Amino acid sequence: VLTLYTYFRSSAAFRVRCALNLKGIAYAPEIVWLPTDEQKSDAYRTLNPQALVPTFVDDDGTTLNQSLAIIEYLDETRPGPKLLPADPRGRARVRALSQLVACEIHPVNNLRILKYLKHVLGHDQPTIDAWYRHWIAEGLSAFERELARGGTGRFCHGDAPTMADCCLVPQIFNARRFECPLDAYPSTMRVFESAMALPAFDAAQPSKQPDAARAG
Amino acid sequence: VLTLYTYFRSSAAFRVRCALNLKGIAYAPEIVWLPTDEQKSDAYRTLNPQALVPTFVDDDGTTLNQSLAIIEYLDETRPGPKLLPADPRGRARVRALSQLVACEIHPVNNLRILKYLKHVLGHDQPTIDAWYRHWIAEGLSAFERELARGGTGRFCHGDAPTMADCCLVPQIFNARRFECPLDAYPSTMRVFESAMALPAFDAAQPSKQPDAARAG
Repeated sequence: VLTLYTYFRSSAAFRVRCALNLKGIAYAPEIVWLPTDEQKSDAYRTLNPQALVPTFVDDDGTTLNQSLAIIEYLDETRPGPKLLPADPRGRARVRALSQLVACEIHPVNNLRILKYLKHVLGHDQPTIDAWYRHWIAEGLSAFERELARGGTGRFCHGDAPTMADCCLVPQIFNARRFECPLDAYPSTMRVFESAMALPAFDAAQPSKQPDAARAG
Repeated sequence: VLTLYTYFRSSAAFRVRCALNLKGIAYAPEIVWLPTDEQKSDAYRTLNPQALVPTFVDDDGTTLNQSLAIIEYLDETRPGPKLLPADPRGRARVRALSQLVACEIHPVNNLRILKYLKHVLGHDQPTIDAWYRHWIAEGLSAFERELARGGTGRFCHGDAPTMADCCLVPQIFNARRFECPLDAYPSTMRVFESAMALPAFDAAQPSKQPDAARAG
């Protein structure tokens, strides 16, 4: 059976959960408990040398990491709705939007960065919150400008969900968790709402994961 | 004519320069002078709403951003050596290695982050250097473990250069510039040397760009 090593609040895992649901692929979730650094255990590192979630293990044993690489692999090897458009320009746009989230916004607000700011640099919570909101505002402003350039429909690219929506949705969940103001991004939020109206995105959200209860 | 908006020290632009050279594609470099924040000008933002380099403008006017999206677009639309393998597993491995650099290592050491650490949080240069070296060490350790897992040949994936090498090479240039120790990553450095022995990578390096002289 196909396994996804996941943690309910990991936005990279959340992206892959959206993609699996959109493509109608059943999977067994295997919880990696980040609060106790389970991802740094020897057992997990053997599976994923990067010591990050998610890790994806296909039914033939193929073991993959990095959320966008996993999503493209699923799209290339499985039937179901396409998460990347057929034309190279469209594919480039969807990848660029995905990478705007995955390479520009998310990495600088990742848990390990916030921990470094707190424990190594000794910053207090208001300073860390300001850091978080600064990069969210910078990133979502760019995302909003990208959506205004054309190509956008009900979703980030056209009228069907793509990998870009799988990246945007978890980022908005993070932004809300840190109480970032989102009024300045109407197109982005419209797309977010379109996605959340679909069962595939709804079922992938943190509060609906098996490990959400464990967090208390 | 095909245009690349570039800055000699931008490692994202450097990735695309490697890819263009590997595929034998001639292009006109257009310099975006990051030291004076030229990327934030209205003219440049119109071209690239993310206000980042690189931006790629194809001969039909197609305007793309995000380095990995540009490289995949070039690979899909141009003849020449393939920068992604033909098989889905290989493609996923090359993408994951590329994303390890582009999503995990590079973003947290980007110039805008270092500026925030300095000007907003008020950290001194030794603290900023320690930050830089910490994330390089964490990221390259993971990269080294990934290369040890198999699939690696003379280059990151097999015996021909791929997108993963286009990402690794600029990251090593950055690491050296910040005097990060690299002895702990023998496989990574062996691959780096293989790449640098090729004219495509050599010609793409910062010191050989038209704007290198301007930096003095």
